[in-house]
Amino acid sequence: MADKYEQVIELAKRRGFLWNSFELYGGTAGFYDYGPLGAMLKRRVENIWRDIFVINEGYYEIEAPTIGIEDIFIASGHVGGFSDPLTECQKCNEAFRADHLVGDVVDNPDTLSADELTEVIDKNKIKCPECGGELGKVYEFNLMFKTSIGPGGKRAGYLRPETAQGMFVDFPRLLKFYRDHLPFGVTQIGKAYRNEISPRQGVIRLREFTQAEAEIFIDPRDKTHPKFGEISDIELILYSQEGQAQGSSENMTLKQAVQNGIIAHEFLGYCLAMTYQFLIRVGVSPQKLRFRQHMKDEMAHYAADCWDAEIQSDRFGWVEIVGIADRTDYDLKAHAKQSGTELSVYVSYDKPIKVERFAVKPNMGKLGPLFKGKAGKIANALKLMKSEDLSGDAIEVVVDGEVIRVEKDAVSFENISEEVHGETIIPHVIEPSFGIDRITYSLLEHSFFEEEVKAEEGEAEEKRIVLRLPPEVAPIQAAVLPLLTREELINPANEIVRDIRKAGILVAFDDSGTIGRRYRRNDEIGTPYSITVDYQTLEDGTVTIRDRDTMKQVRANMSGIAEIIYGLIYRGRSFDEAGRKV
Amino acid sequence: MADKYEQVIELAKRRGFLWNSFELYGGTAGFYDYGPLGAMLKRRVENIWRDIFVINEGYYEIEAPTIGIEDIFIASGHVGGFSDPLTECQKCNEAFRADHLVGDVVDNPDTLSADELTEVIDKNKIKCPECGGELGKVYEFNLMFKTSIGPGGKRAGYLRPETAQGMFVDFPRLLKFYRDHLPFGVTQIGKAYRNEISPRQGVIRLREFTQAEAEIFIDPRDKTHPKFGEISDIELILYSQEGQAQGSSENMTLKQAVQNGIIAHEFLGYCLAMTYQFLIRVGVSPQKLRFRQHMKDEMAHYAADCWDAEIQSDRFGWVEIVGIADRTDYDLKAHAKQSGTELSVYVSYDKPIKVERFAVKPNMGKLGPLFKGKAGKIANALKLMKSEDLSGDAIEVVVDGEVIRVEKDAVSFENISEEVHGETIIPHVIEPSFGIDRITYSLLEHSFFEEEVKAEEGEAEEKRIVLRLPPEVAPIQAAVLPLLTREELINPANEIVRDIRKAGILVAFDDSGTIGRRYRRNDEIGTPYSITVDYQTLEDGTVTIRDRDTMKQVRANMSGIAEIIYGLIYRGRSFDEAGRKV
Repeated sequence: MADKYEQVIELAKRRGFLWNSFELYGGTAGFYDYGPLGAMLKRRVENIWRDIFVINEGYYEIEAPTIGIEDIFIASGHVGGFSDPLTECQKCNEAFRADHLVGDVVDNPDTLSADELTEVIDKNKIKCPECGGELGKVYEFNLMFKTSIGPGGKRAGYLRPETAQGMFVDFPRLLKFYRDHLPFGVTQIGKAYRNEISPRQGVIRLREFTQAEAEIFIDPRDKTHPKFGEISDIELILYSQEGQAQGSSENMTLKQAVQNGIIAHEFLGYCLAMTYQFLIRVGVSPQKLRFRQHMKDEMAHYAADCWDAEIQSDRFGWVEIVGIADRTDYDLKAHAKQSGTELSVYVSYDKPIKVERFAVKPNMGKLGPLFKGKAGKIANALKLMKSEDLSGDAIEVVVDGEVIRVEKDAVSFENISEEVHGETIIPHVIEPSFGIDRITYSLLEHSFFEEEVKAEEGEAEEKRIVLRLPPEVAPIQAAVLPLLTREELINPANEIVRDIRKAGILVAFDDSGTIGRRYRRNDEIGTPYSITVDYQTLEDGTVTIRDRDTMKQVRANMSGIAEIIYGLIYRGRSFDEAGRKV
Repeated sequence: MADKYEQVIELAKRRGFLWNSFELYGGTAGFYDYGPLGAMLKRRVENIWRDIFVINEGYYEIEAPTIGIEDIFIASGHVGGFSDPLTECQKCNEAFRADHLVGDVVDNPDTLSADELTEVIDKNKIKCPECGGELGKVYEFNLMFKTSIGPGGKRAGYLRPETAQGMFVDFPRLLKFYRDHLPFGVTQIGKAYRNEISPRQGVIRLREFTQAEAEIFIDPRDKTHPKFGEISDIELILYSQEGQAQGSSENMTLKQAVQNGIIAHEFLGYCLAMTYQFLIRVGVSPQKLRFRQHMKDEMAHYAADCWDAEIQSDRFGWVEIVGIADRTDYDLKAHAKQSGTELSVYVSYDKPIKVERFAVKPNMGKLGPLFKGKAGKIANALKLMKSEDLSGDAIEVVVDGEVIRVEKDAVSFENISEEVHGETIIPHVIEPSFGIDRITYSLLEHSFFEEEVKAEEGEAEEKRIVLRLPPEVAPIQAAVLPLLTREELINPANEIVRDIRKAGILVAFDDSGTIGRRYRRNDEIGTPYSITVDYQTLEDGTVTIRDRDTMKQVRANMSGIAEIIYGLIYRGRSFDEAGRKV
């Protein structure tokens, strides 16, 4: 029997959600097209993300190019370190990820170097899985797509492996845009690229994919979040470092998790909450969603804490769809170093701070006669001394390489108090990073149901496939179905289509086949509401609205139908109250 | 004095619309970032395009990869012919477009071959404009960014030079999605790339840019449009082939233009109308917009007709921002040939058509005895003959290389009538193709005004810059301004911000500086409505709303403010009726 991935992909291809790219020319692994329904679904997912991160959090979106220059990726470490170990068959020339081939014989293949992997392959006599040929020496293959900007190949360009760098590079401009105040956030939704060696997991591992990322620049001295209280009671399934050591996840509120130090701080906790709310709103099943903390050896050396949102999939098990990390000041420091530009913020204190400082006051009246021309230099050296240097009977300072002994009565000491108005800091970066393609696939799988339905309008009992997508995510939001293909029914149906379109709702007109078949067709693509025009419409101006999930129907006035549908989709209007029961 | 381009770009950089990409590393020509306000503006432009083409016309959007494989671009002609003539300075190595360098000495430099350009350069002793050095031999430089898919450089990949090809390649899938019916349309908004030799026109000539394209597949026998009547009275400024010959454009309705054969057919005329409506809606100035027909020698050999929408810009003169072409069956035929797959549609007739056909009926009773075993083959050969082959005394047929003479009495002739139910056709493609970056820049330039304003709330008379963007396009849609930075005013202001955000409107809170300065700051970025919370708010719960363009103010109840703003932006609500005059 087909597994769920196969069922979902079959539906997705047949109905225009996902197609293999370049199918006309035989296709290429790692590339998928979004068909008409898939692109619409993906767009709606992206727009809900924008509603949360851009409109509500105020993290403005920017758009940087997908091609980047070499400096950026030297700074980010991608030129040096963004690679997978590769081995090629000496006979059939097929390329493989060496760490995948040795997965059965060693424990942590991704921790091995290229040379170590070569050794493991030789020792265990591992051969080409395709043809049995000898495998070549393992080497690191850089996963960035490389190109050349302008003629002559003089300037290297890379397709960005993540959208993040475009935001770090714009830090000086962004800081000005936000009028030098922390915290501020910036977001980007766009293509990213990873030239996988031989991707074999369909839509889960793409060479070209879409990321939605936020980079939130915060004051490292204050990782609380002003709205933490609003979300602290949300309970998540957490699979912490400790939980993983014990092999069990646990349900916990964000408040508990932060208080117990499981999640590093409020700001990260708040990002987990936003992620949760987003994923549930677009249609990920809450029972199939957990947050897994990176283990210490898995986390980047600079990261303070890192959590992945993972969804449970039928074929691939737990799949990472979001990563949320406290990247500290790593990125800004790296670009500051590479560009030779300081990337920091001067933070004024609310009030100037009084700082007590120990001060040495040389007595020039005594030093002058004693040391003559050297007195000035000696006085300066004395001013730099700390209280602990002055514990002896006399004081020794070094001036121009010469050790000079000064009696204590030539200086006086005091604690003076100074005002400090602010300081220069390098912000820390909190980064929630979303894989939009995997999320889109998750929705399809989690909303896919096959069920027996009762006979309807003279149809025989049958199976139906239904995508229980949230109405605001469903690609086609309403279908208008004239009961019969007759002009007197088609005309009012077209009128309804026009009205609904004016409200910005994507509506389909469908008059082909029996009404039962048309309902099935719309169930299968997740259309939440079907509006049927029948002969009663001609008598009293009402139509039926059918709810996809319950298959219940109500009758409502044709004249207000656009508003009703809008209310059902976007305003949480209850279906039962949308009209009178049929 | 700064020209308008300079003024607009200065504002765009300062306020976060457009930034040079990779500025931290010195920048690279041909790449721009959209900052927070620019990205929002661009997104709104794209979404209005979607509202028109996707929601209203029903041309579903798809999303194909930006990387394409070689077959696609061999078929499309880009591997062979997408190039510019290049010459390099032998001294400083700078690269130039050869056709640009010879512009002063020959008339149509873009029609010359590389060798001819080399000759012109030599003859006219044209030197490097940078250093005066000798220029090298001209060669054709392909403008696609090239990369390699997977390891080993075995499979070439190209960054797509247009989004169109992804839609042609999906034709078989799309045809099924639309249940084999013509016409149907498909759209795509996404990145496209052009590795310009040395781009020097700022945001007008980008190496990475965004296109919005529609490919509409129509029946070549019927290029009318069912909704032509709805738009036929729209008057456009047309700069036809004839007009260009005479050097003058003229205002004309679409009806006249199609009737007089200036625009090839209704379908193309309808696309011009959609384009016009879109451009005006997003904020292009109608006085600075014309439609220019391609001259015969400029049009692709396969195109039936082609029009560019051009906007007038201060620095660059008339700039193409949209191209609308009838590409006939060129693209589908090219991909059919390259892929070896038929790309066509079987079109059923409404009623079967009766076709009269001349038929030859061999008389087997006579042929059998005469020709024995050969009689069958002879009869088949006779059936294929046409009436003109039968004019002689006897009939000659060739069977297995042997000429055989058959007397006329061995056959009879008749005209028979057959029913034909349909035919296989190759659709024609109508392609409106929009350059989103140029359009976005046009809006900024066309909405940019500098004007003297009267004193306001105790401020001195001054200049203001105002972006008169249509409210539904403005990046920030409303600003909320507490009159003073005091808690009693800030709290209700924050409440208003929350309410407006819930309606999906991008709202900014601004409490820094005098109220006059805050108005100026919002005028400059095109915020259409500013809401001020003052001490009267605390008394009667009303706030002022200020209209950006007229600077008029009304007072309205704070409780319904989100709805009012929504109505003003999206529902064409009149400002004067939004509250009582102040």
